[in-house]
Amino acid sequence: MEKETVRMEGFSDAIFAIAITLLVLDLHMPEKNALTSSTTLINYLTAQWPSYLAFCISFFSIFIMWVNHHKLFKQIYSRNTAITFANGLILFFASVVSYPTGLLAQYFNTPSVNVVVAIYTGLFILINLSYLLLWHIASKNKTLLRPDINEAAIKKITLNYVYSLPVYIVAFGLSFTYPVVALILCICLWIYWALSSGKLEKEAA
Amino acid sequence: MEKETVRMEGFSDAIFAIAITLLVLDLHMPEKNALTSSTTLINYLTAQWPSYLAFCISFFSIFIMWVNHHKLFKQIYSRNTAITFANGLILFFASVVSYPTGLLAQYFNTPSVNVVVAIYTGLFILINLSYLLLWHIASKNKTLLRPDINEAAIKKITLNYVYSLPVYIVAFGLSFTYPVVALILCICLWIYWALSSGKLEKEAA
Amino acid sequence: MEKETVRMEGFSDAIFAIAITLLVLDLHMPEKNALTSSTTLINYLTAQWPSYLAFCISFFSIFIMWVNHHKLFKQIYSRNTAITFANGLILFFASVVSYPTGLLAQYFNTPSVNVVVAIYTGLFILINLSYLLLWHIASKNKTLLRPDINEAAIKKITLNYVYSLPVYIVAFGLSFTYPVVALILCICLWIYWALSSGKLEKEAA
Amino acid sequence: MEKETVRMEGFSDAIFAIAITLLVLDLHMPEKNALTSSTTLINYLTAQWPSYLAFCISFFSIFIMWVNHHKLFKQIYSRNTAITFANGLILFFASVVSYPTGLLAQYFNTPSVNVVVAIYTGLFILINLSYLLLWHIASKNKTLLRPDINEAAIKKITLNYVYSLPVYIVAFGLSFTYPVVALILCICLWIYWALSSGKLEKEAA
Repeated sequence: MEKETVRMEGFSDAIFAIAITLLVLDLHMPEKNALTSSTTLINYLTAQWPSYLAFCISFFSIFIMWVNHHKLFKQIYSRNTAITFANGLILFFASVVSYPTGLLAQYFNTPSVNVVVAIYTGLFILINLSYLLLWHIASKNKTLLRPDINEAAIKKITLNYVYSLPVYIVAFGLSFTYPVVALILCICLWIYWALSSGKLEKEAA
Repeated sequence: MEKETVRMEGFSDAIFAIAITLLVLDLHMPEKNALTSSTTLINYLTAQWPSYLAFCISFFSIFIMWVNHHKLFKQIYSRNTAITFANGLILFFASVVSYPTGLLAQYFNTPSVNVVVAIYTGLFILINLSYLLLWHIASKNKTLLRPDINEAAIKKITLNYVYSLPVYIVAFGLSFTYPVVALILCICLWIYWALSSGKLEKEAA
Repeated sequence: MEKETVRMEGFSDAIFAIAITLLVLDLHMPEKNALTSSTTLINYLTAQWPSYLAFCISFFSIFIMWVNHHKLFKQIYSRNTAITFANGLILFFASVVSYPTGLLAQYFNTPSVNVVVAIYTGLFILINLSYLLLWHIASKNKTLLRPDINEAAIKKITLNYVYSLPVYIVAFGLSFTYPVVALILCICLWIYWALSSGKLEKEAA
Repeated sequence: MEKETVRMEGFSDAIFAIAITLLVLDLHMPEKNALTSSTTLINYLTAQWPSYLAFCISFFSIFIMWVNHHKLFKQIYSRNTAITFANGLILFFASVVSYPTGLLAQYFNTPSVNVVVAIYTGLFILINLSYLLLWHIASKNKTLLRPDINEAAIKKITLNYVYSLPVYIVAFGLSFTYPVVALILCICLWIYWALSSGKLEKEAA
């Protein structure tokens, strides 16, 4: 059976790549001629640490989205309209990430921090749901999957997304009272995913 | 017969991907230090709803352009100069979409709404015509098409673009008096296309 | 013999696609709240015609660069360091095009028109030279080319770039006295290339 | 043995291509209507030479990163989680290059030149380390490599990155006292790499 999803994967890769690279446009430079001495430049740059932090978090969150996308499409061999549009939803959210990242960078040090962290974690609830939707569509119709996939591997992947959903919901809830804890929770989830992704792949193979 | 259009499809996919991802740059952030309290940030963001609406509409319209492009090139196997430049015209309009989208976002809540909706719907008339042109060139010369394509499938695809043209023209006409209705008409057409695309594919296969 | 240049072509296609799509960022929108009535919006947009003209010219000039690149790499099967860096030079100039395009858009209606047209036509002299360099490196070493290419096809491609060079040089010279004529000369060359590209391909095949 | 890294290479190529093309956004144009006569436009443009210099340096440094990436992945056939994330680190730094490039362009002519050159050369130390990490992971596990690679070729590639590290460290040290010398040292290293890359490839083949 030939893999039918090659062009869809190429298109998705391009969108992930552009979304991840556009993040750098949110790192602002001081206004021309506003600073003159070395000291003030260093001060300016170090005061921008929330921008650098937001950039790093968003870069690796989109990178992990891509890793996950790659992993799902190693199991998906055919496509239909539902797969196409569920994938479109994932790409929509991937291309949106840079906007809440910019808000996070700009308002992390202000009283609005809980609003921007809530928007940021809320987006990842939607991203998690869109991956669940894609995998739900693919896995309920065996003819779309890699012919030699087994039930255990399908269930393993499903559980991966089902388990992460409550983590994001807790992070969203925490963002109104402990926004920094909410962000750390998301980062921990991503590190767990990065470390466990090799294991999953081995079992699914 | 080998497919000759691989590099053309890759190039087109990249342009669709970039055009769709650049849309996010039209979502503006409040000026630095302009807002201090959480309430004013929320107020600022909710007041930006025309930007978010325009972003969603344009994202999915370019996504559907890509789905259509994908579908046409599943039938087109060879290329000539005319195909190359008709495809270039489609890519030209795809890369332009972000500009009327920005105008729509900025002027939706102003007395200029009919001008920006007319520009927006007018662009989709041109896009529809460029798809018709590409398919006209491809289908009048059978040697360019997939060898086992049948007449019914060719006609089906042609009708798809011929039927949508008057819808866009009506939307363009309405935009001067009922701009919101004109936009809704376009969105309905895209939803119809999304839902019917699976059916078309099955029949063309 | 296997084609070795696949990844280089993919990388080049991506750069052409991004360079061509970033051009739209040079189409500026009026300042927020600066215009209120429909008439002033239409006036603002029509006054921007040099931007739209520069956008169209640059879009199709990069598109033709891509068509030419595609055509050369249909003949080039192997690569070496010299090919890699001559190709890098072409990509460098392709990614630069948006800058003189922006200057052209902004200064076309001012006394500086001859400076910006000279920069614009000057860039295309450099682009022409970089294509000549790539083809010179490829064609002097037959082991890099498609095994079944014939001498006549090689010479045909060479002449294509040798003949266009004086046209660009004349356009560059004219830009100091008749800048509009210089631009029209470039556009005529591109139209000639577009129309003749099919013929070349047939003869080279 | 089939190459497993195709989608990872495509994704990496897209990020390199976008990172290299976004550099042009750092070339700023004069404010609209700020200049009127031809002389002042030429004066404005020539005063921007640090921007053009920084653009050229960064374009070719990312291009050489891509050439190196290409070369490594010609030897890497399989992937695991460690390879995926070491590659992610390289892409992270590639997408970051435009930010220190912008700083370099804006502060090259100011007393802050040593700060911006130190940031710039410091980034290339990190880039060198991330390539070393990727190659260390790949080369310590022979099952990830091209089956017919020999020890000498592996060692050759390792030495290439081990030797360049002290050059970058010296450049970083020099940037605090002789920033221009530090930049020239980096450029010399890149020219050496460009010239020697053909030789390496021949020996590794």
